[in-house]
Amino acid sequence: MKFIEKLVNATRKNRSLLCVGLDSDPAQIPDGLSVIEFNKAIIDATSDLVCAYKPNVAFYEAQGADGFDTLKRTVEYIPDDIPVIADAKRGDIGNTAKAYARALFTHFNFDATTVSPYLGLDSLEPFIEYQDKAIFILCRTSNAGAVDFQSLLCESENGSRLLFEVVAHKAGQWNIHGNIGLVVGATYPEELKLIRQMQPEMPLLIPGIGAQGGDLALTVRYGVDARGEKAVINSSRQIIFASKEKDFAEAARQAALALRDGINRQLAELNM
Amino acid sequence: MKFIEKLVNATRKNRSLLCVGLDSDPAQIPDGLSVIEFNKAIIDATSDLVCAYKPNVAFYEAQGADGFDTLKRTVEYIPDDIPVIADAKRGDIGNTAKAYARALFTHFNFDATTVSPYLGLDSLEPFIEYQDKAIFILCRTSNAGAVDFQSLLCESENGSRLLFEVVAHKAGQWNIHGNIGLVVGATYPEELKLIRQMQPEMPLLIPGIGAQGGDLALTVRYGVDARGEKAVINSSRQIIFASKEKDFAEAARQAALALRDGINRQLAELNM
Repeated sequence: MKFIEKLVNATRKNRSLLCVGLDSDPAQIPDGLSVIEFNKAIIDATSDLVCAYKPNVAFYEAQGADGFDTLKRTVEYIPDDIPVIADAKRGDIGNTAKAYARALFTHFNFDATTVSPYLGLDSLEPFIEYQDKAIFILCRTSNAGAVDFQSLLCESENGSRLLFEVVAHKAGQWNIHGNIGLVVGATYPEELKLIRQMQPEMPLLIPGIGAQGGDLALTVRYGVDARGEKAVINSSRQIIFASKEKDFAEAARQAALALRDGINRQLAELNM
Repeated sequence: MKFIEKLVNATRKNRSLLCVGLDSDPAQIPDGLSVIEFNKAIIDATSDLVCAYKPNVAFYEAQGADGFDTLKRTVEYIPDDIPVIADAKRGDIGNTAKAYARALFTHFNFDATTVSPYLGLDSLEPFIEYQDKAIFILCRTSNAGAVDFQSLLCESENGSRLLFEVVAHKAGQWNIHGNIGLVVGATYPEELKLIRQMQPEMPLLIPGIGAQGGDLALTVRYGVDARGEKAVINSSRQIIFASKEKDFAEAARQAALALRDGINRQLAELNM
């Protein structure tokens, strides 16, 4: 099954555009729990409320070999009908890109990964060749420093465009297998609107609501496709660390439910 | 000790600008050897001939938890006076960038890492804060796809500049701790010349000679600083896979010796 079908199926089954970010920093989880125990409890508590999970590879890598074992077991534990997106932001060339793609898609069995565009198409091809997997290319990220390069005005084949617009445009040209999406931060709603207009069919992975301050109503309005789908709205800390006490899993469920339903209320206001 | 001192000390001690890339793909190493055994033999055979080693993290990550254990043991095995650069091309934000920096600099104890510029300064600050460590920012990479974005003409505060020039310029502005370098592919000698002119003091990590076809004479001429130093000229497969038989370590030594001495002959021609 193609990634996009798996994503849309999960969205419809769970009536959800919510992606839970499994940024399970060991320093933040309740005392006495291992990361894998924590993740399993979060997944058990939320898997009927999400369209995807997104573990951030950095938090696992920081634990060395043990962390990678935890990451693999986390992906295995997630129900088969929920896509799992690696937040890895990889970008490398040739054999290295192939090795990263193999690691993420074959060893860890992720359904998709985030990638960096800076090295160009040949750095992305080894990922794109996995036609049932997908990539989300960093386009307009949610951080303040995003403007340093992403908002430079560039001469492109379509005239003067901001760098992130050039990225969005080329992503469309490169999307021959229908397995490319874009990462667009919720903290820049006007840019999100522009990118959705440029790529009406692409899945958009949208971090930046919650702790980072993105506006939910605008995120939903500008992020979804014409059917009110294909926006993957990520929240991490706000959900998984909703409580740091023994009730953390139930608190995560309540936070996920509130956010999923909040997104759905916005869709309802848009008659979607 | 600052990274740049460690690098220059190793260059002078070993009379070498050569960096050996430990891209130790298990599929390529001689039968019957583990990756750590292979790496130890390569390091034993070459550590008096190099200014640095550069393991490509992807090849280790592809092996999961075992690969990360091998990577850690490889860094530990390299003599203390030879800097070790992680080819990791990381680029992420906030807590994630902090986690990557901690993983690479604290857990694995690398001296430096390659990083991607696309997310801007706040994605690099968590690395820069390790003042005795260093980052090499991807500027003009050695692959064909580099042109897709890196050579876009941009409006910058200095007028119209190619994107990689803007990256090189900003890297200079951000270099308050003297621990920033740039990655510039040997396959684009004119761009290398331009970048060295823009940043006469920065260390440049230069992949792309050998298998990728970069010209050694131009790489040396355009890559070094005014003292004939601070160019870190990387070769990976050409050295570590010089032979795939039992004599692989001796063959690697001969290949490293030939390349180091070839670089030094170019320096001699430049009276350096």
